[in-house]
Amino acid sequence: MVERIFNFSAGPATLPDSVMAEAQTDMMSWKGAGLSVMEMSHRSKEYDSIIKDAEARLVRLLNIPDTHKVLFLQGGANTQFAMIPLNFLADGEKGDYIISGEWAKKAHKEAKVVGKQANVVASSEDSNFSHIPARNTWNLSSDAKYVHYCSNNTIYGTCYNELPDFGHNNVICDMSSDFLSRPVDVSKFAMIYAGAQKNAGPAGVTIVIIRKDWAEKIGTPNLPTMLKYKTHFDKDSLYNTPPSYSIYICGLVFKWIEEEIGGLSKMLELNRKKSSMIYNAIDNSAGFYKGTVDNKNDRSLMNVTFKLPTPELDAKFIEEAKKRKMSGLKGYRTVGGIRASIYNAHPLKGVETLVDFMEEFRKTHEKEANA
Amino acid sequence: MVERIFNFSAGPATLPDSVMAEAQTDMMSWKGAGLSVMEMSHRSKEYDSIIKDAEARLVRLLNIPDTHKVLFLQGGANTQFAMIPLNFLADGEKGDYIISGEWAKKAHKEAKVVGKQANVVASSEDSNFSHIPARNTWNLSSDAKYVHYCSNNTIYGTCYNELPDFGHNNVICDMSSDFLSRPVDVSKFAMIYAGAQKNAGPAGVTIVIIRKDWAEKIGTPNLPTMLKYKTHFDKDSLYNTPPSYSIYICGLVFKWIEEEIGGLSKMLELNRKKSSMIYNAIDNSAGFYKGTVDNKNDRSLMNVTFKLPTPELDAKFIEEAKKRKMSGLKGYRTVGGIRASIYNAHPLKGVETLVDFMEEFRKTHEKEANA
Repeated sequence: MVERIFNFSAGPATLPDSVMAEAQTDMMSWKGAGLSVMEMSHRSKEYDSIIKDAEARLVRLLNIPDTHKVLFLQGGANTQFAMIPLNFLADGEKGDYIISGEWAKKAHKEAKVVGKQANVVASSEDSNFSHIPARNTWNLSSDAKYVHYCSNNTIYGTCYNELPDFGHNNVICDMSSDFLSRPVDVSKFAMIYAGAQKNAGPAGVTIVIIRKDWAEKIGTPNLPTMLKYKTHFDKDSLYNTPPSYSIYICGLVFKWIEEEIGGLSKMLELNRKKSSMIYNAIDNSAGFYKGTVDNKNDRSLMNVTFKLPTPELDAKFIEEAKKRKMSGLKGYRTVGGIRASIYNAHPLKGVETLVDFMEEFRKTHEKEANA
Repeated sequence: MVERIFNFSAGPATLPDSVMAEAQTDMMSWKGAGLSVMEMSHRSKEYDSIIKDAEARLVRLLNIPDTHKVLFLQGGANTQFAMIPLNFLADGEKGDYIISGEWAKKAHKEAKVVGKQANVVASSEDSNFSHIPARNTWNLSSDAKYVHYCSNNTIYGTCYNELPDFGHNNVICDMSSDFLSRPVDVSKFAMIYAGAQKNAGPAGVTIVIIRKDWAEKIGTPNLPTMLKYKTHFDKDSLYNTPPSYSIYICGLVFKWIEEEIGGLSKMLELNRKKSSMIYNAIDNSAGFYKGTVDNKNDRSLMNVTFKLPTPELDAKFIEEAKKRKMSGLKGYRTVGGIRASIYNAHPLKGVETLVDFMEEFRKTHEKEANA
């Protein structure tokens, strides 16, 4: 048995052991076909079964209605930041953006880069994004074509734990860092998108779930063919060669959620359990560990952020954790401290190991912290 | 030992056995680090060594001068078709295109889709792209900012076997289907690009080699950040999360060419040997097999296209070949017949098996063909 570390990286991130093991077994010859999935023509019968199976599993997992369709694209969330305003806004039309973190901010900025009007509905930047902008502070435009938000803020450890009333029919969500971590009512969205590399698979594929009427929109003249949702919609994500191996791994992850975890409600239960263990360790540390999120209702289930009494202790914590095979715990530079990313595939055992270590580290160091 | 088929697919295509074996060994724990390359943060020390090593090997293999830089992008050649005119042409400026096949044609078409001027220098479409447009038929513009061509035409089995005098300082080449199949004088190009999935690795990564002064150009206002070469150039391909696993596999392929094959001159020798074996089988078949390329000087080393006396015999050939573990031999629909794609990684043994089978099939069926 290969020894695997506990990987708390914010993304690309841990994938399930059983997914990695199946990919390893089938690397040289997928299901005895005599070639790797990497080597298959994307127009072959074999690959067709792989991409169709991935899509069908995703439809079942999220209970995606017939009004919506799954696309597998390239270019990450950054490319979506441009595609959204370019496709959905004609000249003079406007998008509404809720700014709850770095990625939401980038999405808003990119709408302006591509020459569109983008309105800030609310922002928590003044408090270093330490909370989700409260619903009663939102200033929605009366004429925006969509409202865009980011459901989980990887860097700041916040998320929308309940779906707010957006007051709009066309809600677009960047779910890159909590996609498939919980059930979602897809019918409430014009579009959901997610870079796969946090919760759904490897880097290199972006999953889009789009309402079919919206896939027809091309708001901007002279738009590159590859930047039109319609291009990929019309060709079932096979207009050009897709990132075929990454999609295959996503399919294995979907299978793991469906067959090993038992679906998204069970996934949410497990995610609540894992994140609660760390939040409890923070809250019961008599102030040794301090969560960086102001409002406990906004705490992320995916990225748990906290600080020790001093930056020196943060560094020591990270260093000692590494010796115990826990990696990727360093907080993002704009927040500092510790960030434990515990996406779907991060094992319970990893969280237990971290929580035990937090307790031990606190006992060893709380005296010097109080000195 | 796993039994592997002989995969003649036009792309995604065969990868070297030793590359697949190393990827398999390291799937669960790369070099004992306790995690897969798929699971590594793209900002980690480990991944940094992987992408830097891939780049360094490519620089050595192609002898890339200091004036040029390697980028690893997403979106395939189709995205390049848009990025090239958008970045390199300001309003009113023009690009020259040589149309030698379907992909060259798409590149030209996309320049117009994005609202730029694109001139056809020459085209062999009238003869169903059965040859490369002869140099003396080219009608170069006096004021074009670049000349674009496609070095190997996957569908039609043609290639430029010698680099023509383009009469221009800024030559851009789509090398998707013969990248790394031979040495190339990179200094002669403003840009070379290639979707990896034929000769360099898995689908999902596009390799760009760009002259540094050209990487600074942003010819179009309101260009999406992800579509600017400068974005990726300034951040060493790490502006956003790259397709990290695909780049890793490319690095293993580069290592294979460098260490197992012995460099690009040796690679060319092997490619000449493999393709000659099939072309000889065609030319020595007393007309039973007919090459689809008019001019033998234009024959591709990567995609060997030919026809049997009847479409029924084409179909029977493909069917019988499958029983002998040879797959992917069906010609593209606009050409018909047989296409044997024998990229770098296709083993000599596969070509020997095909040639033996061609001889056997001819002996069995030439009587009925003459009847």
